[in-house]
Amino acid sequence: MAITLEDLPIRDDLRGQSPYGAPQKHVRVQLNVNENTHPVPEDVAEDIVAAIRQALTTVNRYPDREFTELRESLAGYLGHGLGAESIWAANGSNEVIQQLLQAFGGPGRSVLGFPPTYSMHSIIASGTGSRWIAAERDAEFRISPETAVAAVQQHRPDLVFLCGPNNPTGTPLDLATIEAVYDATDGIVMVDEAYAEFMPAGQPTALTLLPGRPRLVVSRTMSKAFAFAGARVGYLAADPAVIDALRLVRLPYHLSALTQAAAVAALRHAPEMLRMVDDIRGQRDRMVTELRAMGYQPHETWSNFVLFGGVADPRAAFESLLERDVIVRDLGIPNHLRVSAGTTEETTAFLDAMRAVAAEQPPVRVGA
Amino acid sequence: MAITLEDLPIRDDLRGQSPYGAPQKHVRVQLNVNENTHPVPEDVAEDIVAAIRQALTTVNRYPDREFTELRESLAGYLGHGLGAESIWAANGSNEVIQQLLQAFGGPGRSVLGFPPTYSMHSIIASGTGSRWIAAERDAEFRISPETAVAAVQQHRPDLVFLCGPNNPTGTPLDLATIEAVYDATDGIVMVDEAYAEFMPAGQPTALTLLPGRPRLVVSRTMSKAFAFAGARVGYLAADPAVIDALRLVRLPYHLSALTQAAAVAALRHAPEMLRMVDDIRGQRDRMVTELRAMGYQPHETWSNFVLFGGVADPRAAFESLLERDVIVRDLGIPNHLRVSAGTTEETTAFLDAMRAVAAEQPPVRVGA
Repeated sequence: MAITLEDLPIRDDLRGQSPYGAPQKHVRVQLNVNENTHPVPEDVAEDIVAAIRQALTTVNRYPDREFTELRESLAGYLGHGLGAESIWAANGSNEVIQQLLQAFGGPGRSVLGFPPTYSMHSIIASGTGSRWIAAERDAEFRISPETAVAAVQQHRPDLVFLCGPNNPTGTPLDLATIEAVYDATDGIVMVDEAYAEFMPAGQPTALTLLPGRPRLVVSRTMSKAFAFAGARVGYLAADPAVIDALRLVRLPYHLSALTQAAAVAALRHAPEMLRMVDDIRGQRDRMVTELRAMGYQPHETWSNFVLFGGVADPRAAFESLLERDVIVRDLGIPNHLRVSAGTTEETTAFLDAMRAVAAEQPPVRVGA
Repeated sequence: MAITLEDLPIRDDLRGQSPYGAPQKHVRVQLNVNENTHPVPEDVAEDIVAAIRQALTTVNRYPDREFTELRESLAGYLGHGLGAESIWAANGSNEVIQQLLQAFGGPGRSVLGFPPTYSMHSIIASGTGSRWIAAERDAEFRISPETAVAAVQQHRPDLVFLCGPNNPTGTPLDLATIEAVYDATDGIVMVDEAYAEFMPAGQPTALTLLPGRPRLVVSRTMSKAFAFAGARVGYLAADPAVIDALRLVRLPYHLSALTQAAAVAALRHAPEMLRMVDDIRGQRDRMVTELRAMGYQPHETWSNFVLFGGVADPRAAFESLLERDVIVRDLGIPNHLRVSAGTTEETTAFLDAMRAVAAEQPPVRVGA
């Protein structure tokens, strides 16, 4: 008889759990996991290939444990006067966040977040033995300084996780909220800016708040704006002392020589990569406009996706879209679906499919 | 004034710690971290480059979360009737071991090991909140079934970590010891076989013990035999139920599309890669013979390195070798140094340098 998980001495808190997982289906129009649907341009890919060919000549050796060149490249990309000593990176922002919690969270410590937000925040908190505390948002998924500070004062968490623009809602995060939270706590304040590049041009990010705030951490990723989800490069900017703390918990040589080479090469092409971002913002705005015209209620979004309400039966709508070769995300928010902005063609395919869905199940008016 | 680690709210158990790290120095003959000093052959590198070029066409998408093709390739390489469902991989065996401890160890649980052994075993145990219990070895760093079972019965650990061939001593691990430990515990038994390919040809590995032992886990790496330390590919073989447990704790998409492509391509060249292993074993045996002739006491080794006793002052010997552009490892074992087998030229350089050291500080006789 086959052995099952329940026959093994796994930790009690894992019993009965199912692994995380958005479905990985082969669907023509994939708009379900906020990927950048634009492939890396061919000239950039060739530069990456050349960098990897070079890295392979010494791949028998352990990689640079300090990934100095990558940290310099990331610092140069971010600007704001940041140097390599203020940068850290890992295999996806998930690993960056896990390391942050290994250093500052863990058993006996707590993390305050504001759902609905990136689902991995609470999952990684649990995975590191940190207690996850969920606080309420204001109307339209916003978080005012007053609301945030009240939650911090009530729960006295060791870390506060903010997400701006917020996933899965797209909601902007006010810098005033970050400043107020920082002043209200002695703990670490982490702002997840995975979607920062999709904000309106010229908007200041949490990076502007770093000077003088050694407990502030701003996490980023190359998955979205750099179309690099498959390469797994997340990073953060913070005071050099925070970086020292992460060195205590990171597994040595966690970032491969191939990852380092690929990321450095891609960052050399930042201006070209960011031109795709303009296209994506255009398609996102088109989604918002046309969904609204159909009778749906898209929420304000500063990211590369749109959360929209007014879906009478999200599960049935999801399946109906899937039959039309379009996959979106049903996050269990009543009457809502989330869709990533695609190329012009993908966006058209989604909007056409949504018109068919709207004919099957007319949009409904939902409360704010 | 600059902020320091001590000004930040890091976990109490991390205060005062220093990050892990063998020095990463630019030295001509680097024999300090058990790397394979042979570069990946050019034809293999070109095949890897081609695979990565292909992977880059979809790198804007998240990688296959189940890395199915890689698991199939690893299963095919290992043989022993293993299928992809019995294989797991991560960014280096360090991450594989961390995931194992997240699933089966952690707060309130304990791990029994037998130092001197791979130093990351205890570090990762601490990092996951598991209690590390150190048990004694027999003479010549061996572990008899009786010694191992007595330690298991005394400490009743949740996991037992064995390492064969053992790092940093090179000591063979008897299968009888693994079987006895397995029968003596209800917990997980992990055998770290990072150096298995350097064992004498035809020797059975712990893989032969997997059938009927769902709590046995055998970890491997591509860092050594496959000259892939820079690519970070560790893996393990175990009952499919163990793999299910690891899915509960792994960060989603932890293994990049580039890593998956590179590893699959390298595994296609397994016979060519393993021919380098024969060269390395030859140089290792030459080191043992010549060190003994100089008056040192090299320990029996089945791996790609040699631990040798009889060094009057290891710290001074290390520095003297470094002045001769040769770096080895001083692990703090009294009167001992560890050296990795290199190419013919590197091995010659090390042996010549050791003859100079022996002239400076004559070898001493140390107790068994």
